[in-house]
Amino acid sequence: MTGRLDEESYARAALTYLAEPGDLQLGALVRGHGAARMLAAIEAGTVPDFLDSGAARAAAQRAMRCWQVRLTELPSADDIAGLCRTGIRLACPGDPEWPARLDDLGAAMPYALWLRGTADLRFSCVRSVAIVGARAATAYGAYVASEFAASVASRGWAVVSGGAYGVDAAAHRGALAAEGVTVAVLACGVDVPYPAGHADLLDAIAAQGVVVSEWPPGRNATRLRFLVRNRTIAALAAGTLVVEAASRSGALNSARHARDLGRPLMAVPGPITSELSAGCHTVIREWQGMLATSAADVIEYLSPLGSAAADPATGSAAGPGTGSAAGPGTGPISGTATSEAALLGRDALDLKAAAVLDALPSRGGMGSLKIATRAGLDPDTVLRCLGALAAVGFAERCDQGWRLRRS
Amino acid sequence: MTGRLDEESYARAALTYLAEPGDLQLGALVRGHGAARMLAAIEAGTVPDFLDSGAARAAAQRAMRCWQVRLTELPSADDIAGLCRTGIRLACPGDPEWPARLDDLGAAMPYALWLRGTADLRFSCVRSVAIVGARAATAYGAYVASEFAASVASRGWAVVSGGAYGVDAAAHRGALAAEGVTVAVLACGVDVPYPAGHADLLDAIAAQGVVVSEWPPGRNATRLRFLVRNRTIAALAAGTLVVEAASRSGALNSARHARDLGRPLMAVPGPITSELSAGCHTVIREWQGMLATSAADVIEYLSPLGSAAADPATGSAAGPGTGSAAGPGTGPISGTATSEAALLGRDALDLKAAAVLDALPSRGGMGSLKIATRAGLDPDTVLRCLGALAAVGFAERCDQGWRLRRS
Repeated sequence: MTGRLDEESYARAALTYLAEPGDLQLGALVRGHGAARMLAAIEAGTVPDFLDSGAARAAAQRAMRCWQVRLTELPSADDIAGLCRTGIRLACPGDPEWPARLDDLGAAMPYALWLRGTADLRFSCVRSVAIVGARAATAYGAYVASEFAASVASRGWAVVSGGAYGVDAAAHRGALAAEGVTVAVLACGVDVPYPAGHADLLDAIAAQGVVVSEWPPGRNATRLRFLVRNRTIAALAAGTLVVEAASRSGALNSARHARDLGRPLMAVPGPITSELSAGCHTVIREWQGMLATSAADVIEYLSPLGSAAADPATGSAAGPGTGSAAGPGTGPISGTATSEAALLGRDALDLKAAAVLDALPSRGGMGSLKIATRAGLDPDTVLRCLGALAAVGFAERCDQGWRLRRS
Repeated sequence: MTGRLDEESYARAALTYLAEPGDLQLGALVRGHGAARMLAAIEAGTVPDFLDSGAARAAAQRAMRCWQVRLTELPSADDIAGLCRTGIRLACPGDPEWPARLDDLGAAMPYALWLRGTADLRFSCVRSVAIVGARAATAYGAYVASEFAASVASRGWAVVSGGAYGVDAAAHRGALAAEGVTVAVLACGVDVPYPAGHADLLDAIAAQGVVVSEWPPGRNATRLRFLVRNRTIAALAAGTLVVEAASRSGALNSARHARDLGRPLMAVPGPITSELSAGCHTVIREWQGMLATSAADVIEYLSPLGSAAADPATGSAAGPGTGSAAGPGTGPISGTATSEAALLGRDALDLKAAAVLDALPSRGGMGSLKIATRAGLDPDTVLRCLGALAAVGFAERCDQGWRLRRS
C-alpha cells in the first residue's frame, strides 16, 4: 500500500501509534467492529456506542483513557502517505502483502505492519523458517545459525528473525550471503537503526528482503516490545528453529509462541556443558521439538508430506500450520513448461507477480530492468516480485540476472 | 558358584568352550533339552536322539561338526573347579548371581557367565545403567561419560560398560572414582588383559565391581565377539546411555540391542559439528531415545513411575524392562526401622546378603571385618554383599565404614 490510504487502513495505521500491539482488548474490539469505528470512538473520547453490554462498556471506558494518551502524536492520513513515499509501506489485513498466517494470532494479531524493503512479505513467508536464539551466542551458535540460514535460503526458503545480535544477526547474514530473502521483525520502527551496530545489516536486509514492524516509524524498542514482537516472528514463519538458548531465557519466548500456535518447532542440540544449549534441549525433550542437525532436516520437517524436500520447486509452499498462504502447486517448473508453470501457481500470485513470472526466461538470464519492460511494471515492483517468486521456488538468480527455477 | 559343579553347570561351562555365544540354534536346543544332554551328544558325535523331526536332525547334524571342533580344548570338571579357586567363578541360569534380565535374550542368552570381582552381578545389575560409546571419544565425550558414571554410581547405580578405550574407560573410571560398583562385560576371558593398556583398570574394576564374560578364561577377543558381547551389555542393564557415537558405528550396536530388547534408551546430545555426536542424535530423533543432559535425567528415566529419583532407597530397584530382578520394596529405610527395612526386601536377598543387612548399623558406621564377624561370614562374601546392598540402595559407605542407607 503506497498510495492514498482508505479509511480502515488509516485507522489501523493510527492504532499502531495509539496503542501497543498485543492489546487483546483492543484487538478483539477491532476484529468485532473495525478499526475505523474504534479510532473514531477513541478520538471522540466516548465509549463506543456499539458496545451495549454494561460490562464491555465499563472495561472499554477504562482502556479508552490509555488509548487516548497518544492522540497528540497521531499523524494525519497525509502524513502517513508522505511516510510511504520515503520507502516505507503499510500492510493491513486484506492487503495483498498481508501474511495470512498472522490471522492465527486472533485478537493478538498486529493492527497493521510497517514494511521497508524489496521483498514481498506475504510471498516471503510462504516458505519461511524463523531462526532464533541467544544474543550472546557462542561461536558454535553463530556458525550453526549462519550455516542453516544460508542453506535454507539457497533452497528458496526465507529466513525470519529479530535483527538482534548473536543468533539473529548470524541467521540474517547467512541468508543474505546466500542471496536469499530474509525478514527482520523489529521491536521498533522500521526506520530505527536498533541495535545501532546493525544499521548496515538492517539496510542490507531491506535491500534484499524486508524489515517489518508493528510499531510505527520512529518508535523506539523497549524490553516489553521485544517479547510482544516475538509472537509475530513465530506467527509469520512456517516453523521456528531455536539455535541456542539458555533455560528460561527470552530466546525461548519465540519458541513458546510457535508451540502455542501449533507451528512446527525445532532446535539444534549442542554440548550439555553449554548453558546456551540447555534451552534447545528443553525444546527437544519437553516441548517435543524436532532435533535438527541440518538445513535439510528443517526443510523436510516444514514441507508437507510427500513434497520433495530435495526439490523445492515441486513442493507445496504452504508448510504445516497454515491453511491460507499460497504456494506454487505441485507441478515441476521446467524450462520447457513455462506457461504451465505460470499457470500452476497462478491462483497464488497477484497479477503483478504473474506478469513477472511470464516475463522470466527459462534459460540464460535476464536483468530486472528488461524484465520490467517485458512485464510492463516499474523496476521496484519487479524486484519485489522477483524476491517473492524466488522465495516460493519459481524464480532464481543466475549470473545473467534472473530466470525460471528449473526442477 | 565356587565349589564342585553340578552336571548341568559343568555342561554350560563346557559349552562356553565349544561354541560361540549367540548361536541361536544351540541356544534353542539348550533351552529345550538342557546343556548336559547337548554336551553328551556333542561328545558322542551323534545327532541327539531327542530330536525326532527330520529337519531338526539334519540342521543339528551340520552344526554338530562345528561344535565338535574344539572338543580337544575342553577342560574337565576338575579343571574348571581349579579355575574357580583362582578368583574366577561361574554363574549359570538359576544360580543366585545369574541376572534375571538375561532371560530376555531368549535363545541368544549366554550359556553361562564367567565372573571375576567382588561385586554380586545380579544385585549390581538391578539398578544399573549401561554407558557406552566411541573408543575414539572426544574430550567432551570422555568428560560426560565420566561425570554421568560418577554421578549415578554415587547414587547407588552400577555402571555397565565394555572395558574399551574412550567412553567405556571413562565410564568405568567415573564409577570407580565415586566408589561405586561398575561391571565390565568383556569380549575375551575375564583373565585376559585386553586392551593391554587396561590391565590395571580391569583389576580395579574386579576389586570394586565385577568383570564378566561369556567366553571362558584365556579366550581372546575378536571383532565379531565385540558385537556379540554388546547384546549382553544391553541386556544386563536397566537401560542404555549412548555418550558419543558416530553414525553407523559399532558404538550404536549396544544401543540397537537395548532398543530391540525394549529397554529404555538414552543419548547425550552434542555439537552437530561433531561426527561423534551424530549417532547420539540419531538415537534421539530416529529411535526415540531420551535426550539426557544429566545423571538425574538418567535415574529418573530408569526409575519406575512414582519412585523418587532423589531418594533411591525408597524406589523399587527394578527398572522398566525387567520383571524379575528383585528390589528393596517400597518402604523407606530409616535408622529407626532397621528390622522393617531388612524385611521389606528380604525376598530379594539371599541368606548371606540378608545376614549382612542385619549386621549393618543404622547410625555411625562399621568396618567390613566387624560386619563379617557379626554376620558370621567370610570377609570376601561380606564385601560382595555390601556392594550389592549398596547397589540396590540398602547400604552406603561412610567415613567409619558401612551403614544402612537412610531415607
